[in-house]
Amino acid sequence: MLAIKCDKPGKIKLRDIPTNSDGGLKREESPTRFAALATQLAELQELCYAAGTQSLLIVVQGMDTAGKDGTLKSIAGAMNPVGIRVASFKVPTAFEAGHDFLWRVHQQTPVRGETVFFNRSHYEDVLVVRVHNLVPETQWQERYGHINDFEELLTESGTIVLKFFLHISKEEQERRLLSREENLAKAWKLNVGDWKEREFWDDYQQAYDDAIEKCAAKDAPWFIIPADKKWFRDIAVAEAIVETLKPHRQKWEQILAGIGETRKAELAAYRKGVS
Amino acid sequence: MLAIKCDKPGKIKLRDIPTNSDGGLKREESPTRFAALATQLAELQELCYAAGTQSLLIVVQGMDTAGKDGTLKSIAGAMNPVGIRVASFKVPTAFEAGHDFLWRVHQQTPVRGETVFFNRSHYEDVLVVRVHNLVPETQWQERYGHINDFEELLTESGTIVLKFFLHISKEEQERRLLSREENLAKAWKLNVGDWKEREFWDDYQQAYDDAIEKCAAKDAPWFIIPADKKWFRDIAVAEAIVETLKPHRQKWEQILAGIGETRKAELAAYRKGVS
Repeated sequence: MLAIKCDKPGKIKLRDIPTNSDGGLKREESPTRFAALATQLAELQELCYAAGTQSLLIVVQGMDTAGKDGTLKSIAGAMNPVGIRVASFKVPTAFEAGHDFLWRVHQQTPVRGETVFFNRSHYEDVLVVRVHNLVPETQWQERYGHINDFEELLTESGTIVLKFFLHISKEEQERRLLSREENLAKAWKLNVGDWKEREFWDDYQQAYDDAIEKCAAKDAPWFIIPADKKWFRDIAVAEAIVETLKPHRQKWEQILAGIGETRKAELAAYRKGVS
Repeated sequence: MLAIKCDKPGKIKLRDIPTNSDGGLKREESPTRFAALATQLAELQELCYAAGTQSLLIVVQGMDTAGKDGTLKSIAGAMNPVGIRVASFKVPTAFEAGHDFLWRVHQQTPVRGETVFFNRSHYEDVLVVRVHNLVPETQWQERYGHINDFEELLTESGTIVLKFFLHISKEEQERRLLSREENLAKAWKLNVGDWKEREFWDDYQQAYDDAIEKCAAKDAPWFIIPADKKWFRDIAVAEAIVETLKPHRQKWEQILAGIGETRKAELAAYRKGVS
């Protein structure tokens, strides 16, 4: 697998993990390679949707400019818009903040059959919240356990959970921020907040180390995606989802075959009745 | 415009409107033609999303097999999955049915910037509900007025509302239902309910005549789309949306230019401060 899969708790040092890998792939072959994965993604998502016994939750996290929106455009864009949904988590409203940190997140989890992408997620509550001391340390320290319990509730209820960290270097972030300033027509995309948050780069990396380390679970793994190369990022994310869903294919097809038999019998009985 | 636009109350007889038009287009040119519209759709939706002053609600209705899912796949699939959402309305749950008929629908309307597709909608409450006498006539007769008031509330609050009726012939529906039976691997898609509802074809067409006639408004128009030819249907729907959004483009671009100026100034001030 091109992604680095973390499916059990264990030390993570993002600083030691390269951000610009290409997995030995060539850029020229990337469109063909991605297209093949996109076709499989669309098929597997349709099976999941139609079988309706499980659901899929895909968490996308990363530093500013890491490519969360771009990844969603490629990956979610490859699937049927009926049956998928993107939930974007911004700064909590006063009403949301009046509840526990999982309250607003729980409302957005997928119904059976559905695929939901979290564009940022409950992990912000151990990332930005920790870096800026928005709650006391005793409180955010307790959250890793709550997150694990919550994700276990989801996976035991039939939700397939995948969590992606889009891993870029500090230099690549600077390049991307500066390149945004060159496109005057898109000046509305500029955000001084991105530069301010960049000053906390090391704190964020540390917070990500801990979040990945403490919340990597067999049924809710983290995938670290080298993301300096956008074309590689998309392929690595698509491949990780396809590999995770593939083992479910046969079961979903059997469920659908069973439904098919029932439907054919109903139709035959109806035809007998009306003829 | 390829679609038949109904933007004020007035007699509609679907029976007299052809379902197999091609608007003089050739099938061979349809991929190029659709691709050009899809690019414009994606651009306009991004502008609407970024400007964040208005929202877009696209209602999709039609008889069984008319192509609601296919249309959503083409049209919503052309847009950025971040910022769009498909709300599918099935038979109301007991809890939903315990409220007025607009309650569950209102909860799904788009937030500013967002594009929401209704896959079926509040119109079912004057369609299936009327055809099967699920409520007394006095009650469904009152609903046209409630629908107009509701849609006026939305449009006056900045939501752009478009309503599509995918218009197929009874013969085309039969062809599509029978062709589903040929694909044994997709037998789970069969639904005896489709055949049963087909017996009420004329009642449904009458109910659609009335719904379009009574709920066609300048700011919430109906578009009748000849939909026997799927490639024509997609082009006609895309064109209607593009033509509706185009007049907003300049305004949205101005808003974004203003945001861009503010952002550049903020960035400059920040640089002065840190340097």
